[in-house]
Amino acid sequence: MSDALAPGQAIGILGGGQLGRMLSVAAGRLGYRTHIYDPGANPPAAHLAERVTCAPWDDRAALRAFAQSVAVITFEFENIPAETLAALEDLRTIRPGLRALEVSQDRLEEKRFLRGLGLQTAPFAPVASTADLAAAMAEFGPEIILKTRRMGYDGKGQVRLGAGADLAAALAELEGADAIAEGVIAFSAEVSVIAARNVAGAVAAFDPGENLHKSGILHQTRVPARLSAAQRSDAVIIAANILNALDYVGVLGVELFVTPGGILVNEIAPRVHNSGHWTQNGCAVDQFEQHIRAITGLPLGDGARHADVVMTNLIGDDIDRLPDYLVAPDTAVHLYGKAESRPGRKMGHVNAIIRAR
Amino acid sequence: MSDALAPGQAIGILGGGQLGRMLSVAAGRLGYRTHIYDPGANPPAAHLAERVTCAPWDDRAALRAFAQSVAVITFEFENIPAETLAALEDLRTIRPGLRALEVSQDRLEEKRFLRGLGLQTAPFAPVASTADLAAAMAEFGPEIILKTRRMGYDGKGQVRLGAGADLAAALAELEGADAIAEGVIAFSAEVSVIAARNVAGAVAAFDPGENLHKSGILHQTRVPARLSAAQRSDAVIIAANILNALDYVGVLGVELFVTPGGILVNEIAPRVHNSGHWTQNGCAVDQFEQHIRAITGLPLGDGARHADVVMTNLIGDDIDRLPDYLVAPDTAVHLYGKAESRPGRKMGHVNAIIRAR
Repeated sequence: MSDALAPGQAIGILGGGQLGRMLSVAAGRLGYRTHIYDPGANPPAAHLAERVTCAPWDDRAALRAFAQSVAVITFEFENIPAETLAALEDLRTIRPGLRALEVSQDRLEEKRFLRGLGLQTAPFAPVASTADLAAAMAEFGPEIILKTRRMGYDGKGQVRLGAGADLAAALAELEGADAIAEGVIAFSAEVSVIAARNVAGAVAAFDPGENLHKSGILHQTRVPARLSAAQRSDAVIIAANILNALDYVGVLGVELFVTPGGILVNEIAPRVHNSGHWTQNGCAVDQFEQHIRAITGLPLGDGARHADVVMTNLIGDDIDRLPDYLVAPDTAVHLYGKAESRPGRKMGHVNAIIRAR
Repeated sequence: MSDALAPGQAIGILGGGQLGRMLSVAAGRLGYRTHIYDPGANPPAAHLAERVTCAPWDDRAALRAFAQSVAVITFEFENIPAETLAALEDLRTIRPGLRALEVSQDRLEEKRFLRGLGLQTAPFAPVASTADLAAAMAEFGPEIILKTRRMGYDGKGQVRLGAGADLAAALAELEGADAIAEGVIAFSAEVSVIAARNVAGAVAAFDPGENLHKSGILHQTRVPARLSAAQRSDAVIIAANILNALDYVGVLGVELFVTPGGILVNEIAPRVHNSGHWTQNGCAVDQFEQHIRAITGLPLGDGARHADVVMTNLIGDDIDRLPDYLVAPDTAVHLYGKAESRPGRKMGHVNAIIRAR
């Protein structure tokens, strides 16, 4: 505790979306102030923070003033330009560190890192030509997924290719972006582990949640996930291995595939994660507070799950069902303060608490 | 729903202390923005709100600008000057309305109002002289409590008088403030009901909590309170009667004494209440969100209790125990962002979740 950030100090958060917003609220609960940095005007987190800077990622003066106004910097998403982070790193500690970002920003780097830890992943190969694609299909087939190495999220930047696909056209779609081909995994469930590691190296993980996607975007997370006790501890151990290997400080989201041959790592996100939103209503300490505790040098909290929870995202027109959710039993609504809904836009989520048995 | 405040609209909150701060967070969760008005510099709610105006209660220009920037006005405490409220009421709807404030700002008015509803209270009498005091002591004795009619909270503005007390000195202490004498109630428990009534007239109450005071300040609230089923429903019905009689919109705190002769009303607070903080970790919808729902025209949420909770206030030096609370099992810490602790100052609270049986 002696090295922990004192209450009243300010935390800088890069990115003012819903994750930054919920991080800001959690920071407040621990007595900290927050300063949001976002290139957009009127970002959602601005409604629930002490200070907001709306400036481009390459505005050196704004970045400097931001860094100097806070005691530590964190971020809500992994696709922040490397130059921005490099400029900030000279001025203030950034947690988690840049190594975690480098790994998770590049799907090829990520896969190699995970394999290097002895973890299982989907088969993969870098792709620079139709010949590479054809070879990957022959090896991993009958279907493969072609993905950009960078900037992919919510199913963007990826396409599934089967027999007879026009490989040249698929590659042309990427407009020269570096790419990777992955084999398709026959999984029985996709689960994710939200885990944290603090400055002192302590690790804690929330109970794994089971994810259901729609159109490539997370639709629902349910806890408990349908896992055996052995699978449950495997999942947590995998997350802990990754945290320790990266000397990570903060919350990390780890998406896993459950297969007959064991648990594979799909991808990691070096931040609080949509599949961890259930913790807001299922635990005394949620993922947002756990992240703030980790990066401020506080001890990690008890993230024991005290209820079964079903988290459902409100995406685009889903928001029209808000009146039903507002009166649903034991249901907590979390809106993000976004003015207009658009297809695919995350407007909020609801946590339905399933009574303890 | 059709008349409900649209998401993205702004709510004005008079008072920027911890209650205003937690109201602001709840408003954000429902997609609203908030504007805090507080006479002090850097009030706690300023860290978690979109806008803050720091100006005196009698600054007409600031009040006007504040009112014009929001769609509805509410408050976090009942001792706002009447002139301030009158000035604002001409410009925007204030919820709850001024009738509730008039009643709760004056202990004599409050007691008469409650008796008028057929509810039991402690015996009471207005006091203007030592003769009045002596008469009250003779009638309600052996001990009585002398209280100022206005501006009392957390045990301030009151003194207990027994046989042989210097009545003239006690009265002189009040410096001419209007006063009331109350009989001392032999109660087996003090409980409070946090209840809400929305624009449509719907009423909902949280499970009663049992309060423990230290030095006149709330120390702990435990749910469930030790009440029989009959007492439990009596308590809720009392709260509902008060809400309906005041045509109340918002959350109301009702403090009750449980006695062998039935349940007496001690006092009412026309706002979210310290004894309702347990709802943050015991219910899907907490008292802060219930208040925001009520004043914005939304349906009230399901405030069913899904856990036993012990809420403990962190007052003054209690904050030194923070390191223990941060690592206590199933314990949620809620700090208010106040820089310095002082004796009697509420710095935060902790909710310990007791596992469902």
